[in-house]
Amino acid sequence: MSSVGFHKFAKQTFPILLRCLNRSKPLSRVSVGARHFHCSTSTPALPKFGRKVRQNTLSRALENIKEIMADPAANEVLAPLQASVKEQGDLVRQLKEQKAPANDVKVAVTELKARKKLLEDKLSREQEGDVIDRAKMEDLLKQRFFYDMSFSIYGGVTGLYDMGPMGCAIKANLLQAWRNFFVLEEQMLEVDTSILTPEVVLKASGHVERFADFMCKDEKNGECFRADHLIEAHFEKLLADKKASEEVKKQVRATIPLVEGMSKQEMTDTIRKYEMKSPTTGNALSDPIEFNLMFGTSIGPTGHMKGFLRPETAQGIFVNFKRLLEFNQGRLPFAGAQIGNAFRNEISPRSGLIRVREFTMAEIEHFIDPSDKDHPKYESIKDVEATFYSVKNQLGGELPHLTTFGKAVETKMIDNETLAYFMARIQLFLLKVGLDAKKIRFRQHMSNEMAHYASDCWDAECKTSYGWVECVGCADRSCYDLQCHTKATGVKMVAEKKLDTPVEKEFVTLTAKKGLIGKEFRQDAKVVNEALASLESDEIRAIHEKIQSEGVFSIEKNGKEFSVKKEMVEIKIVKKMVHVEDISPSVVEPSFGIGRIMYALFEHNFKVREGDEQRTYFSLPPVIAPFKCSVLPLSGNQDFVPFVKQLSQDLTLVRVSHKVDSSSTAIGRRYARTDALAIPFAVTIDFDTVNKTPHTATLRERDSMKQIRAEVSELPKIVSDLSEGRTKWADVVKAHPAFEQQESSK
Amino acid sequence: MSSVGFHKFAKQTFPILLRCLNRSKPLSRVSVGARHFHCSTSTPALPKFGRKVRQNTLSRALENIKEIMADPAANEVLAPLQASVKEQGDLVRQLKEQKAPANDVKVAVTELKARKKLLEDKLSREQEGDVIDRAKMEDLLKQRFFYDMSFSIYGGVTGLYDMGPMGCAIKANLLQAWRNFFVLEEQMLEVDTSILTPEVVLKASGHVERFADFMCKDEKNGECFRADHLIEAHFEKLLADKKASEEVKKQVRATIPLVEGMSKQEMTDTIRKYEMKSPTTGNALSDPIEFNLMFGTSIGPTGHMKGFLRPETAQGIFVNFKRLLEFNQGRLPFAGAQIGNAFRNEISPRSGLIRVREFTMAEIEHFIDPSDKDHPKYESIKDVEATFYSVKNQLGGELPHLTTFGKAVETKMIDNETLAYFMARIQLFLLKVGLDAKKIRFRQHMSNEMAHYASDCWDAECKTSYGWVECVGCADRSCYDLQCHTKATGVKMVAEKKLDTPVEKEFVTLTAKKGLIGKEFRQDAKVVNEALASLESDEIRAIHEKIQSEGVFSIEKNGKEFSVKKEMVEIKIVKKMVHVEDISPSVVEPSFGIGRIMYALFEHNFKVREGDEQRTYFSLPPVIAPFKCSVLPLSGNQDFVPFVKQLSQDLTLVRVSHKVDSSSTAIGRRYARTDALAIPFAVTIDFDTVNKTPHTATLRERDSMKQIRAEVSELPKIVSDLSEGRTKWADVVKAHPAFEQQESSK
Repeated sequence: MSSVGFHKFAKQTFPILLRCLNRSKPLSRVSVGARHFHCSTSTPALPKFGRKVRQNTLSRALENIKEIMADPAANEVLAPLQASVKEQGDLVRQLKEQKAPANDVKVAVTELKARKKLLEDKLSREQEGDVIDRAKMEDLLKQRFFYDMSFSIYGGVTGLYDMGPMGCAIKANLLQAWRNFFVLEEQMLEVDTSILTPEVVLKASGHVERFADFMCKDEKNGECFRADHLIEAHFEKLLADKKASEEVKKQVRATIPLVEGMSKQEMTDTIRKYEMKSPTTGNALSDPIEFNLMFGTSIGPTGHMKGFLRPETAQGIFVNFKRLLEFNQGRLPFAGAQIGNAFRNEISPRSGLIRVREFTMAEIEHFIDPSDKDHPKYESIKDVEATFYSVKNQLGGELPHLTTFGKAVETKMIDNETLAYFMARIQLFLLKVGLDAKKIRFRQHMSNEMAHYASDCWDAECKTSYGWVECVGCADRSCYDLQCHTKATGVKMVAEKKLDTPVEKEFVTLTAKKGLIGKEFRQDAKVVNEALASLESDEIRAIHEKIQSEGVFSIEKNGKEFSVKKEMVEIKIVKKMVHVEDISPSVVEPSFGIGRIMYALFEHNFKVREGDEQRTYFSLPPVIAPFKCSVLPLSGNQDFVPFVKQLSQDLTLVRVSHKVDSSSTAIGRRYARTDALAIPFAVTIDFDTVNKTPHTATLRERDSMKQIRAEVSELPKIVSDLSEGRTKWADVVKAHPAFEQQESSK
Repeated sequence: MSSVGFHKFAKQTFPILLRCLNRSKPLSRVSVGARHFHCSTSTPALPKFGRKVRQNTLSRALENIKEIMADPAANEVLAPLQASVKEQGDLVRQLKEQKAPANDVKVAVTELKARKKLLEDKLSREQEGDVIDRAKMEDLLKQRFFYDMSFSIYGGVTGLYDMGPMGCAIKANLLQAWRNFFVLEEQMLEVDTSILTPEVVLKASGHVERFADFMCKDEKNGECFRADHLIEAHFEKLLADKKASEEVKKQVRATIPLVEGMSKQEMTDTIRKYEMKSPTTGNALSDPIEFNLMFGTSIGPTGHMKGFLRPETAQGIFVNFKRLLEFNQGRLPFAGAQIGNAFRNEISPRSGLIRVREFTMAEIEHFIDPSDKDHPKYESIKDVEATFYSVKNQLGGELPHLTTFGKAVETKMIDNETLAYFMARIQLFLLKVGLDAKKIRFRQHMSNEMAHYASDCWDAECKTSYGWVECVGCADRSCYDLQCHTKATGVKMVAEKKLDTPVEKEFVTLTAKKGLIGKEFRQDAKVVNEALASLESDEIRAIHEKIQSEGVFSIEKNGKEFSVKKEMVEIKIVKKMVHVEDISPSVVEPSFGIGRIMYALFEHNFKVREGDEQRTYFSLPPVIAPFKCSVLPLSGNQDFVPFVKQLSQDLTLVRVSHKVDSSSTAIGRRYARTDALAIPFAVTIDFDTVNKTPHTATLRERDSMKQIRAEVSELPKIVSDLSEGRTKWADVVKAHPAFEQQESSK
């Protein structure tokens, strides 16, 4: 398809396209988690779980790709789309190489995304049978109180959810599995730090200034809209409007690609030019204002200490770097880890558990020597296979491809062993807790999605009915965060490394002559002394040169400039032999969105019984299932009670979490209920249990609905072995008689 | 000691007394967790973990009481103090019975507390050898980063703490043990609800209006002081001031007992009268203002939805009552449970982990039929012994006494079986996780500490160097909270109970004639209709009577009163046979302060090695210990590496959390370190491990420092059995050769 042909096609499909536009950030903004950051390229920031949902609504379902491509009919449809993406990808690369004007690049990138979207949509349609009935699944989740909207008796609050008993148990199991898999197996240093965070900390990290979206307010009722959403929706309406002139439409089409790169002024101008009103009331709108997404509060009674609820758990690890390094006896590498809640005041939360205002994260900060990113356990994951959607794939219109982590590192697709090791561990974890291997892929960040200090960054994405959703981010970052905190506090955050051979090193020191400074600067003397004390070696060297020639230098602090004379400072430059060197560690940062993983787990494991549309359930693996086992007396008969009690005690002893359901409901309906609650096994105490010796009971497996009969006293061990993966159901079936019908009837 | 004699004594000790005064609330204020609530007696509220620390600083150490009292010398000292308490207790009772003026009761109660304090102080002195060296313990906690102040590189924030790797692991183990012990064993319905809570919910629960302390601000620098602390400190200074006249001192002494019951106006008057200034700067102070202790924020971008960080986790269970009842198939009893963070903006946080601004709670709301508070598992705890400090003990100057829960219920000391069951389970849990039985007691709330709707309330207190600290509250409450939310939302929160025999019941309904109401009230019609719709049966009956005679009645809503005419409503009273009745459940509420339990665990398990003051450690039981086992290669010799690796893998397989310490430090120092980290077992790989077959290694137990030698392949099972309590160390010592020295030396 030629570029012109593509444009024609795109014109027809613009309304949909606009709704789904890929929101990767243009080069002039920097983000990793794909949250907009209104800042220059040189400003870094790392929010996780940002706008990715919307982005991924478009880049859908690319699985089973080889099979699809192997189908000649499908290939015929897809091949030209692939070629069209590749063509545009080449153009983008070319423009970048030529350092073309930013707007040209933006236009080209936006078209690239549109083409990718078309390709991925087409691919999705090729495999539509795979899509789940989300409404049906949500019914089950709500009915059985896996989770539901918070405070709904008060009308509810968007973006806040309560986990019910089943959701809560699943979450606890998921976190326990995470802790075992990462913290314990990898001997990470887990911390549990404050949610309340003073402003000064989040100023240093950049969140106070830049963790924001633009929004417009309805001037009458105060309703808020995200400015970029608003403009795009307005444009979409205009394009669909038969009364709008072709000229206007042309103009709009030319503007669309610029929307996501717009500055505040550009947005203001656009909104005014097109006289945009509130889409819900038609009222006038305020100009775009920056809305910081952090929840603010005040710590202590004075009202002088502003604080925020942390927007991520990572900062709690960074501010404790020194203590953790010391705990690790001063040695690199080591990993800090944290599980905890973070908070973001989304302007318009949506997509259920995926985009919320309060969420649980599990983050790892693995600190390493930047000059040595090898990993001692790399061998153990070299041969693990995964689906990768690399930058090259994305730009080349290629499909994600399956390969091993070993090959990925060899070919430099993944930057280094440590990053690969963590990516592989992420995948192994996601599989262990029950995600579908075919619905997991690693998507590499395009250079415009990454912070300038990140050397490589991949998202583990899970396919859901909302599209591919970022569930785990895995970035290889420089030492940016530690440096921020050092800058703000003067506390050095470095590790010492023993040198193989001592080297001679130049040391530069500047001593302020406080008497002279006091005389000259009076009430500002303290500030000047502080400014002088915080100078880096390079800065001192520059000052040294300057005062040789000019006899004076200037220094800035708190927005004021001070002119300092040569005689007020003493600069010494000496050479010494050193045996250690300071290392500013790099960090590999896997960051897990627990709610998103849970949501993907629900979708990947949602099942409808063949032949009975009403019987829906979740085929969660035992490690994650809320309970491992149900205990069901066949009826309310009192003879069953002692057996139920004993079994329950014995299951507790071997730590099998279980649920006794002795309600009077018919056994069939109770099976349906235990299935709906995602409980993998159920023991039924029946009349044969009571009447015959040895006492036996039936054990039923949820997914197959098959039952076997075994001695009651054996059952705790059988269920425990099944739950912990020491035996398989198939083996249990082989070793025990299948159950069809009990012999006693009362 | 006569009352006069007591006064003389008291006079000399007033400064200390004042610092320590028992802060139980006077009758005019209601609290359960002992937080001041500025409200009338009829206003209920339930904050947990309030001012109890201060209160308990005074009521110290009453353990090993029998032994102390058996000592004639001690008895001679204590007996008169006991008599003095009893005398005053009788007086208080008498005054209350006579319905004496509130101030008289206040004065008498305050003196009672002072006498109790003297008694308890005396008792404490009798057992001083028992007090730990807190500074030394805090050194260890800080050095090994169990926990430390948050954001300390930024100067720290009082009342906020970060858990380091060891604290975090202990906390995770503690919560896991709690979940196993309560949620799983008792089949509770655990939820995980939002921390962000809209104002409307906390208005309904009473927190917005009443969760407050009074404070005064330094008018120049804004420093804040709790008003009652301020007044007391000023009075204390006055009494110690040699220049102050006897008349002033007399006046002050008469005022002191009134401080804690003072209204805002009384505090204002007192502060003005004595011209109190800021104790730190001498600046003028503002009049007392009410300071709500909740952290406020704004939910969503409009700024119109005010919200708070929850001050307790309980409300998240109450607002989900209907969903949980449904999950439990409509049946009572059932228990909701929640583990999570809560937040209180303390005016002046102190006492380390005990009084903080952000803390983890674990709460249970056990909903029961108020007419049936028996418990099916009561038999299992009947014979459990505990130390009780009942109201009778406290008023009678008696010491806490040891008895069984069975006897406590029989004698009506504990109100009912369910409450006793939970108290016993609380004690069993506290013992299981490693608290010292001798340092746990249950203190019953005096009637003036309880909300009016609570029928009985006990605190599990742990003895620490701060005194007896409330670690778990256990209240038997009425259905107050559910009713609050019903009132605010109109959503009925009741359970249905099948009646044994159907009964005839009168139903009263009121139907508003909306047409007539619309005409009469116009824009207010909606409000009037809502007010009419929310009327209770009793109210409708009253209206029915009223309109018979007067033809009109008035109704209030949103602060407005509306006069409604007879013809605007239709009231029907019909009789029907009913087979079920609605039950407003009562609730038994055990509420655990996780940070406080952790702190008590540290104190109860802090040890100093005999003969080596520098070697301090925590003798935590394996269930709570951060790791179960250390793995220590004797030196950096490479031959040890494969053994360490294999053992680590095998320990992981049997789920034994462990820490490999292969640093080059000498083995003795590494043992000291593993002890300091509270790790109960350590395996050392030495040259005999490498050189001899079968390969053996040493296993060392922390508290005894004894070592045995066993085959490496057996060790994972041995440590796993020890950690989970399946075997005891003594048995392991019997079954394996003691280790003295390895035979190989390289």
